[in-house]
Amino acid sequence: MNTGKNRQFRLASRPVGDITASNFEYREEPIPQPSDGEVLVRTIYLSLDPTNRIWMSDRPQYMPPVEIGQVMRGVVIGVVEESKNPDFQKEDLVSGVLGWQDYALALGNTGLGISKLPSPLPCPLSAFVGPLGATGFTAYFGLLDIGQPKSGETIVVSAAAGAVGSVVGQIAKIKGCRVVGITGSNEKCRWLVEELGFDDAINYKTADLETALAKSCPNGIDVYFDNVGGAILDAVLTKINLDARIPLCGLISTYNATEPVPGPYNYSQILMQRARVQGFIILDYSSRFGEAIKDIGQWVNEGKIKYALEIVEGLENAPLAILKLFNGNKIGKLAVKVSEEPV
Amino acid sequence: MNTGKNRQFRLASRPVGDITASNFEYREEPIPQPSDGEVLVRTIYLSLDPTNRIWMSDRPQYMPPVEIGQVMRGVVIGVVEESKNPDFQKEDLVSGVLGWQDYALALGNTGLGISKLPSPLPCPLSAFVGPLGATGFTAYFGLLDIGQPKSGETIVVSAAAGAVGSVVGQIAKIKGCRVVGITGSNEKCRWLVEELGFDDAINYKTADLETALAKSCPNGIDVYFDNVGGAILDAVLTKINLDARIPLCGLISTYNATEPVPGPYNYSQILMQRARVQGFIILDYSSRFGEAIKDIGQWVNEGKIKYALEIVEGLENAPLAILKLFNGNKIGKLAVKVSEEPV
Repeated sequence: MNTGKNRQFRLASRPVGDITASNFEYREEPIPQPSDGEVLVRTIYLSLDPTNRIWMSDRPQYMPPVEIGQVMRGVVIGVVEESKNPDFQKEDLVSGVLGWQDYALALGNTGLGISKLPSPLPCPLSAFVGPLGATGFTAYFGLLDIGQPKSGETIVVSAAAGAVGSVVGQIAKIKGCRVVGITGSNEKCRWLVEELGFDDAINYKTADLETALAKSCPNGIDVYFDNVGGAILDAVLTKINLDARIPLCGLISTYNATEPVPGPYNYSQILMQRARVQGFIILDYSSRFGEAIKDIGQWVNEGKIKYALEIVEGLENAPLAILKLFNGNKIGKLAVKVSEEPV
Repeated sequence: MNTGKNRQFRLASRPVGDITASNFEYREEPIPQPSDGEVLVRTIYLSLDPTNRIWMSDRPQYMPPVEIGQVMRGVVIGVVEESKNPDFQKEDLVSGVLGWQDYALALGNTGLGISKLPSPLPCPLSAFVGPLGATGFTAYFGLLDIGQPKSGETIVVSAAAGAVGSVVGQIAKIKGCRVVGITGSNEKCRWLVEELGFDDAINYKTADLETALAKSCPNGIDVYFDNVGGAILDAVLTKINLDARIPLCGLISTYNATEPVPGPYNYSQILMQRARVQGFIILDYSSRFGEAIKDIGQWVNEGKIKYALEIVEGLENAPLAILKLFNGNKIGKLAVKVSEEPV
């Protein structure tokens, strides 16, 4: 029985505009003890994702918001420390939507689910907060299931150097598409083209977007994987082809807004080009994660999908680290290393 | 050989905001003579439709805009007066995208196509500018193919007393759905509920839309057939269910705008509710019009689809009549009777 402490960050207040560290309250609790059917999980990696910002608000959303005073919700890769559930053994590696804390109870009456990672691991454990985690699955199902790219088509992805966008572009390359990424720095553009094999990349902070898209997409845009909404969506809509598909994955440009945000001014292009805009949430695909693990695991091992992880050390740094999701100072996937991987 | 005159309205200028009669120029030309392969069609009914406003502008659109100086484009029900094409005989009744004029040449080198109406006619000829015309087909394919309503679901349609909306609602009733129409007068609301069998109707000019939708749609909204965009779309988005479908048929609230129009402020609901917004243009379905004629013809004959036609007499009145599409003073389908039906 572990008698140490359980460090936690709880939601202290809902952000108005940008997240600030004061939206979180630091607490130390005893490490909880599992009851029958429950499992105690030690957090190894805590994933930080733009969707966390949605959960912190009380806007209409796809899960209940985190309540004030609750432990902040987060996707976790962890290890079972103690099990009173016959389906899980001590030392099993698991993932689940748990929280910003050292230890969490799952299963049984907790209302929180976990899944076992494949054993033996096909890749380093940290890949499971990256391309083999929720962001990779989001890229996989959003692009293939909703975007339905065909070889030779042109795919544009925004937030292209992010955890989702970077995998979207690489899967589209595997499927034979022309891939153009939109991102916010020349360094990220170089990374996309030179390291990940994108055909072109546009720095939206310095380019005239419509002009740049016309140049990078001489045959128009067949699939736009939208992570951001806003002005970038508007520019893309001017260049979409007939029957374009727009998987709507995120609207990060709007998450910190304090005033109502207008939808795209070029919304009528959806009508004129007979386009399809379809929202999706990766949790709806949970029964099919196995397909994604198989394909992405193979592509990672073959070197066809590369990924960058920015790992921040220490749970205590999570409230500041999450700001990197919104200020553009990040390449690839952001996570916090909360405790050591098992040896 | 007909030696009479051919009255025409040509596009004189592009509207800025609302259409005005001065956007059209009246001309009298000789009646044209068909060359080999061509057919001379006498216009009987000229259909007036919101999409005409799009054709008059040079915004991005789904067909080439009408050029200044060209005969104004319009959907016509007519009769063959003279044929130099072996597939058509004098007296054949036909439909096609012809123009605002007494006579038009079709087929051959004209670039204009026509289709024969079924013979014998299953309904009165005027039904072919209504539920058996382009607006009826738009309702049919937009609702069934894109909206995919299931029995027991709730369908909301805007511009519900219009040519498309009134047929959408009645087909949805045939399919076992709860149907709520949004329209702009109490008289139209009564017509929808008492004559057409809608479950409820909302006068958007007097109701608080979100409150009224919550009351009329206690189980939320599964399909929203959008003819208008704008504030009505925004209100509907707050009430859509998971996996909602939004066939995007028209954006009439924006057609006369002189400034950029923002998209829906509640665009993020498309993401949160995993909704699908899909634009469509009825011309894409032309190879399948036979399906629609068969079903709608049967429903009209069985009295399951009722329709209202507002027939304006005389081609000379077309430039003023078209304004009725945008000022709300119309129930059902608007058309101009240009010449007499064959006896």
